[in-house]
Amino acid sequence: MRALLTDRYELAMLAAYHRSGLAERRAACELFLRSLPPCRPFVVVAGIERAIRALLELRFEEEDLAYLAEAPGLAHLGGGFLELLRGLRFRGDLFAMPEGTVAFPGEPILRIEAALPEAQLVETLLLSIVNHDTRVASKAARIALAAGGRPVIEFGSRRTHEAAAVDAARAAYVGGCAGTSNEEAGRRYGVPVSGTLGHMFILAHGPSGEERAFGDYVATFPEGTTLLVDTFDTELGIERAIAAAGERLEGVRIDSGDLVALSRRARERLDAQGLRSAKIVLSGDLNEYSIEKLLAAGASADAFGVGTEIVTSPDMPALGGVYKLVAVEGPGGAMRPVAKRSPGKATVPGAKQVYRREDGAGRALGDEVALADEAPRQGRPILEKRIERGALVGAWPPLVAARERAAREIVALPPRLRAIVGGDRDPYPVERSERLEALFQEAMRGGNP
Amino acid sequence: MRALLTDRYELAMLAAYHRSGLAERRAACELFLRSLPPCRPFVVVAGIERAIRALLELRFEEEDLAYLAEAPGLAHLGGGFLELLRGLRFRGDLFAMPEGTVAFPGEPILRIEAALPEAQLVETLLLSIVNHDTRVASKAARIALAAGGRPVIEFGSRRTHEAAAVDAARAAYVGGCAGTSNEEAGRRYGVPVSGTLGHMFILAHGPSGEERAFGDYVATFPEGTTLLVDTFDTELGIERAIAAAGERLEGVRIDSGDLVALSRRARERLDAQGLRSAKIVLSGDLNEYSIEKLLAAGASADAFGVGTEIVTSPDMPALGGVYKLVAVEGPGGAMRPVAKRSPGKATVPGAKQVYRREDGAGRALGDEVALADEAPRQGRPILEKRIERGALVGAWPPLVAARERAAREIVALPPRLRAIVGGDRDPYPVERSERLEALFQEAMRGGNP
Repeated sequence: MRALLTDRYELAMLAAYHRSGLAERRAACELFLRSLPPCRPFVVVAGIERAIRALLELRFEEEDLAYLAEAPGLAHLGGGFLELLRGLRFRGDLFAMPEGTVAFPGEPILRIEAALPEAQLVETLLLSIVNHDTRVASKAARIALAAGGRPVIEFGSRRTHEAAAVDAARAAYVGGCAGTSNEEAGRRYGVPVSGTLGHMFILAHGPSGEERAFGDYVATFPEGTTLLVDTFDTELGIERAIAAAGERLEGVRIDSGDLVALSRRARERLDAQGLRSAKIVLSGDLNEYSIEKLLAAGASADAFGVGTEIVTSPDMPALGGVYKLVAVEGPGGAMRPVAKRSPGKATVPGAKQVYRREDGAGRALGDEVALADEAPRQGRPILEKRIERGALVGAWPPLVAARERAAREIVALPPRLRAIVGGDRDPYPVERSERLEALFQEAMRGGNP
Repeated sequence: MRALLTDRYELAMLAAYHRSGLAERRAACELFLRSLPPCRPFVVVAGIERAIRALLELRFEEEDLAYLAEAPGLAHLGGGFLELLRGLRFRGDLFAMPEGTVAFPGEPILRIEAALPEAQLVETLLLSIVNHDTRVASKAARIALAAGGRPVIEFGSRRTHEAAAVDAARAAYVGGCAGTSNEEAGRRYGVPVSGTLGHMFILAHGPSGEERAFGDYVATFPEGTTLLVDTFDTELGIERAIAAAGERLEGVRIDSGDLVALSRRARERLDAQGLRSAKIVLSGDLNEYSIEKLLAAGASADAFGVGTEIVTSPDMPALGGVYKLVAVEGPGGAMRPVAKRSPGKATVPGAKQVYRREDGAGRALGDEVALADEAPRQGRPILEKRIERGALVGAWPPLVAARERAAREIVALPPRLRAIVGGDRDPYPVERSERLEALFQEAMRGGNP
């Protein structure tokens, strides 16, 4: 089924490559960002393992072929076209940055090397997966930075598509969230799942039923519960939570009102009752900016719940990753670098590798983008071969490895890039190797690179 | 599987309702918008048929139960809890606005009446579906309005999650797009699918291969093709497209550069060659504002391709639909209206119906929100019963009926609401019935409604 998760034009071009006699030619395509907005001095790469799985499982099912046989605009291509699709598998190579890598504009996040029709067909699906997951992981990373080590729980499922929600929870975890509310993300990916009670449970006990609601909830979760205290009157809710749970009160969640004043009041009351280890969880349309402000204003917060802002990232609602042909096999069999010169949309030709220079303490100093076939440059090469001739290279890494990589690489960044405001003023240095730069200049002059 | 597409707290509350002895109590919950930003004077409701299907198919699979049996935080609930979940089905009623309805803040888009645990569990899934689809349909409606009858093709799959892309294509079609690039949306929902060629196909023919690429493409799609002309030099690309396709040139697509000047030049050259019926398709980060400006500046456009802006709607990245308990069965068996009084998040108690007053020509004059059990108000009642005791009421309407309803209801709106800028200055009138208003005021005073 997954092969139909694509744009019509990929299928149309696939047919035309066969008509052109180009179907056996090998192509190299790279997925990269042209630029980033000031609010994202870096991204955290996510979705790579999902993309690998999609490539390994890529195929047209019989129901897809039955649909395509009748589809207006494609039906005239006939049985030969359907036979091509029936036999189609991804038989190429994939080179990719490991999930959790910190990346910058101009760097290939992944590269496909495959026969032209295969390299073309997978464009839409790879972009959907990597753009979505990387966007969410990158926003989560910023919010986790603002929280300064306090756990951030992602609970945005209700603000995004129900299937996107599961993968958003996964990406947010890679980016630095401590967990999610999404239960399926726990089952499918092992992301830690948590949750408390909602306002509805309290309302269901009637307008004066908050005490009974708390009591019933504590009885159901006797090993420790976090209670939501703002349904009617937050200060009263705090007292009732203390009365209902006592020593077993793991924490209180405040979702509305003056979070600074209410959280300080909650801390005061909890401490007065000897509940020093009870946590205060704040939520309610939070993001990295409001969390930074809450903490600066003296809010007493031990954890944050963030929904909408992680799954939609309103300050960068789409990640503009693109997937471009960078080299194609010429009639003589040699790979020939190619570039697009459209105004504002020019590309850099040639298959590339990224090298990250680090100091003795592992701090990132700068990246160099070079041609994949030139002599290794200074620094650590980042892209790894993950699929070879259609087969997985090595094992599936555990998700937590991606999360740990992201944490490590974010700490290794120059401190200015981790600032919530102003992190874009002095961008991270990314340079092209001399050979790559020469090739790019030649292509832009309209030469035959 | 779908039952696990939920937040942990829904499952926790479900368990606590049983512990509370409230599991048999009937509840009414409504999904509605609290407010809309100025850039959305109305929304187009979408996702209803998907929500219905989700309710009808709701269940926990054995693999879900095996996961929950071991899930930290839930495992202590034991076998009794798992048995409850194994037998859980949606056995309640659903009342909903038909898909394609134009709606406003304060109006219930749908209402669930079911036993408390069922009504609670479906909260997250219903919000995910309706918030996502309605957000996309509403943005698509605005873009289609700006295009003034010219077809708009949605092609944003690469800027959203791969599964969300399919349902975004469906929702955009409901909202007014003429079609999509997403092939799976064609198979699954019958949305018209179209596409041309991409820059990669041209680059694959080498830096001087545009003419050959066009020739090969026309040969593959001899019944008429639209050619993308901006890969190298747009004016030259137009000439080459005319030369390659001649009479069979259905159109040209321009994706970069000065769209006003280039589209006028393209029209001039096409007309000079007698290709008056060849269409000019414009694309490249367009939205309702830029389309309005392009047309005002004299661009020669017959159709638009819009991707990112439809699937992400950056001016309203999340639709803030909420799902709230509005009534619950009391100990005596009678339904008792309830409301939440949290600051800024208060709700209006009671199960509701929406009545739309129209003039003789079908123009919408204003809406009244009333209690579902009060005598019918003036106007056309909008919410319909779609599920009764867990079973579908009536048949599945075809998707095109939703699209036609949206078109009809948008035309029936006061013209100021259809303006791209300033449509929020004089909002559409939505009033509460006297009885509903009295109940709301009583609840806000803290009385026992």
